Amino acid sequence: MDRRSFLRTSALGGAAAATTTLAAPAYAQGNRTLTMVTSVPDGFAIFDDAANYAARAITEMTDGQLTINKMPAGSLVGAFEVFDAVSAGQADLYHSAEYYFLNQHPAFAFFTAVPFGMTGVELLAWYYHQGGMALHHELASLFNLKPFLCGNTAMQPGGWFNREITSAEDLQGLRFRMPGQGGQVLGRLGASVQNIPGGEIYQALASGQIDGAEWIGPFADERLGFQEVTQIYYTAGFHEPGSALALSMNLDVWESLTPAQQKIVEIACEATHANNLGMSWAENGAALARLQASGVQAREFPDDVWDAFGRAAAEVRAENMGDPIYAQIAESYFGSMGSTSAWWEIGDGEYIRQRNRANAG
Amino acid sequence: MDRRSFLRTSALGGAAAATTTLAAPAYAQGNRTLTMVTSVPDGFAIFDDAANYAARAITEMTDGQLTINKMPAGSLVGAFEVFDAVSAGQADLYHSAEYYFLNQHPAFAFFTAVPFGMTGVELLAWYYHQGGMALHHELASLFNLKPFLCGNTAMQPGGWFNREITSAEDLQGLRFRMPGQGGQVLGRLGASVQNIPGGEIYQALASGQIDGAEWIGPFADERLGFQEVTQIYYTAGFHEPGSALALSMNLDVWESLTPAQQKIVEIACEATHANNLGMSWAENGAALARLQASGVQAREFPDDVWDAFGRAAAEVRAENMGDPIYAQIAESYFGSMGSTSAWWEIGDGEYIRQRNRANAG
Repeated sequence: MDRRSFLRTSALGGAAAATTTLAAPAYAQGNRTLTMVTSVPDGFAIFDDAANYAARAITEMTDGQLTINKMPAGSLVGAFEVFDAVSAGQADLYHSAEYYFLNQHPAFAFFTAVPFGMTGVELLAWYYHQGGMALHHELASLFNLKPFLCGNTAMQPGGWFNREITSAEDLQGLRFRMPGQGGQVLGRLGASVQNIPGGEIYQALASGQIDGAEWIGPFADERLGFQEVTQIYYTAGFHEPGSALALSMNLDVWESLTPAQQKIVEIACEATHANNLGMSWAENGAALARLQASGVQAREFPDDVWDAFGRAAAEVRAENMGDPIYAQIAESYFGSMGSTSAWWEIGDGEYIRQRNRANAG
Repeated sequence: MDRRSFLRTSALGGAAAATTTLAAPAYAQGNRTLTMVTSVPDGFAIFDDAANYAARAITEMTDGQLTINKMPAGSLVGAFEVFDAVSAGQADLYHSAEYYFLNQHPAFAFFTAVPFGMTGVELLAWYYHQGGMALHHELASLFNLKPFLCGNTAMQPGGWFNREITSAEDLQGLRFRMPGQGGQVLGRLGASVQNIPGGEIYQALASGQIDGAEWIGPFADERLGFQEVTQIYYTAGFHEPGSALALSMNLDVWESLTPAQQKIVEIACEATHANNLGMSWAENGAALARLQASGVQAREFPDDVWDAFGRAAAEVRAENMGDPIYAQIAESYFGSMGSTSAWWEIGDGEYIRQRNRANAG
């Protein structure tokens, strides 16, 4: 399926999905072991927790018909090679973050997070109810993949810096680890941006190869030990306001599953989304308190730095709009966000303001 | 299991759960149809959508081994009779909101929503990662039930009023529909509170039996047609900042399921939680815009009315603390909320402020 037919057959365009299988499929029989490659080492908080939760749910719900053999980053293929490996059938599925694969297609950004984009709950709305999942499936089908969102880190902090950021000037020449469109935004502001797999960040930071890094959030960052190297932590970030993780299966493997097994994979991923978003919320507050007790200083970027992020984010967004697939997905995404964020302001926003006021009073 | 042993064997107390089955269970064989009673009529937005989503997922994942026969409110038992019916084995499971059952135990409030309590994402943290689910299981086991959260309406608006609320005085004598602890709070402020099933609210409002009502949110409320009767809509509410729905199974029926079937029910409910929370977010913004276009006026309560809600909510909370089960669950719930809400303020809160500022600029 090429990019022209994507637009013709898009779920949003109203035509039937091009991936419908008309011939009766031949299901593989008996118990099977599926190889899942991931982008992090074993035990990485939040990220690997999501992979394990989904894998265990699939195995238990199928009563062992499908067993997931997880191969962490570097054991079969490298952290960022999982996409090509599963696309080509070298592994059966991957668990990763889709924005690692912007070189394969820039629109994969929307299925993790984009600068000034959706929070975790806003993403649930778009993905499951406003066309997001159908667009994800169509985009990935170009690469012989069947993906589902499968985890969520919640809002990711601005990150760890070896010096305070008092103006956008301070970003000039800063050697910083940030993937995805967020990294492109920092690059426009003069930073020297590097995309380093999670398992290699600590070493890069400790050796002085980079001046700073963002990873996931207080709980996951604490486990990697960044606080041993630098103590300045910007708690809010522009770049990933609710990053989804994803499980993606080779399309031929997917089509060899029975309908019940397919449903089990889909629902396991959706449950993992809720469970992992909850884990992020459950752990981050307590982890930040521990970090602060150990000497970490929590900071917020000044407004004019946020303004610079906003301007550069608009430029990065605009520069991809010439790609019709990207443009179609962006229109769907930002249309959904506009609707949900207005309701947030007079609903949850007002409630939280009043709850804070009541607790302070 | 009595209330003293609840405390001794509580998951938070560190002892083994008392509901562990030691003898090898005899599983029912073959395809089964389970009767699910609900508290709303067919087609009620958000609420019935959650019941249908979970039921379909269970049937498809079990390849028809478990088929759910849904009996909406009034077809087998009344809306608020589902708890006792399933507890006694008259039906196999219910889908409802746990705070309808405060007469059975006041602590069920925490598994829907409490005034000035958790938002939807905060509830995910507590329920799946900080002991909430284990406490839910222990509480419900006293009534021969096995429950799981299964849906979420997100923040519920203050509701529909036939006149503006300019001070707490205006609540005196107001005949208002609100269930749960929220209704108890309004009652303390002088309102005449009624708990009316969802299917009967429109008639009560249209006939003048009540002066106002809250139900779920713009999307679900619009479908019931409240805007035909009154046009004053308070968008933020103190009473249900993220109401969970629940699926609860008769414990004997639960124990007759295979481990794979049990896992399927559990994961279907967790996925429904994410899916339904997303639906609430997806639909409410657009529905409110339609309501406003038809003449509905969106309002916020004045600060001194919020203050009155806050004082009365603290009183309602305190009056249940003599019950040891209630006190234990309250301690767990508010401990979790304190940790997550502090992180919210410097994480998501700062991000959303900056995103709004960037979009306004």
